[in-house]
Amino acid sequence: MKFTGSTAKSMEIKVDLATGLIAGYPTLERNLSYMKNMFHDGKAYDSLLAKGDVRVYDFFDLKRPVNDRELACGTSIVYPGKVGDEYFMTKGHFHEVLDTAEVYYCLSGHGFMLMENPEGDWEVGEFVPGQAVYVPGRYAHRSINVSPSEPLKTFFCFRADAGHDYATIESKGFRKLMVEKNGEPAIIDNPRWK
Amino acid sequence: MKFTGSTAKSMEIKVDLATGLIAGYPTLERNLSYMKNMFHDGKAYDSLLAKGDVRVYDFFDLKRPVNDRELACGTSIVYPGKVGDEYFMTKGHFHEVLDTAEVYYCLSGHGFMLMENPEGDWEVGEFVPGQAVYVPGRYAHRSINVSPSEPLKTFFCFRADAGHDYATIESKGFRKLMVEKNGEPAIIDNPRWK
Repeated sequence: MKFTGSTAKSMEIKVDLATGLIAGYPTLERNLSYMKNMFHDGKAYDSLLAKGDVRVYDFFDLKRPVNDRELACGTSIVYPGKVGDEYFMTKGHFHEVLDTAEVYYCLSGHGFMLMENPEGDWEVGEFVPGQAVYVPGRYAHRSINVSPSEPLKTFFCFRADAGHDYATIESKGFRKLMVEKNGEPAIIDNPRWK
Repeated sequence: MKFTGSTAKSMEIKVDLATGLIAGYPTLERNLSYMKNMFHDGKAYDSLLAKGDVRVYDFFDLKRPVNDRELACGTSIVYPGKVGDEYFMTKGHFHEVLDTAEVYYCLSGHGFMLMENPEGDWEVGEFVPGQAVYVPGRYAHRSINVSPSEPLKTFFCFRADAGHDYATIESKGFRKLMVEKNGEPAIIDNPRWK
């Protein structure tokens, strides 16, 4: 802060554009072991995990007060990789306040946001640098990195009290999955969906 | 949209990184004539306006439903320029739902966010590429471009029903202003503040 006012309630959020990391905050680290049963090819998952518990994604919680006047924001970084034919991705979540929206602005990389609501409607938004995806309320959402080499970095923003419901995804999964088919991203039905 | 789901409730928001403009949406255009009485040097203002009603800034309203579950987001582009010693800036506003926060992520350029609350507490956050400023609830906020040549481009996000109170700024102004002093940005008291 170059200029000092009488209070210090605002925040400067410093994103390192090379890494996507935010100075002064620890990441929430999500390794392959955290993603048990999320990828459709269980054998490929076990075999990759046996080689090492690699990082799949990082994201941030900047610890704003939890109420409907505040916003939660930060970066999410999904690293390049695949489990079998399925791209590295976030676990994905519904909001606990189900109908609250979220915005993800793509800083760098190439990927997709997979979204579906409890009724089974689904949508996909593309991430390229400078493109944001508006995730409507009621839609679970998962970021997917389809680049073979580059991290997918996004800056997200949602109502601070929206909350994360991961349990539904952990037990049921997404109805749709994104895999590589003939060298291209493709959407398939999730054979494990319950 | 490369993949078609069963609904179309999400949005891809395509920012042209060269201009900061969003494909498919008109900008809200704010020219010098819109900024009457906002700059402290009235003579410099009149003289600049006499030469032409130049664009000072652009921003977007993506027309999301106005309720507390939705988010308003888009880009804001403040062009380089000065009125006397005072940098080009946005008019600035309080939120009508006064204690709702807002986040501005800097895409490119160099500038500052000037913030102050009704009690007169004030803060300044810096914009450089990759740096976001979290504007706390209750703080009026104004983006200021201090670059002599480059637009200041930010991506903003706030609760869709927060609303804009411009009238307070129009009648009272900000208590503080940012001007150029010895070639550097400096904060001064606003001689016109009521």
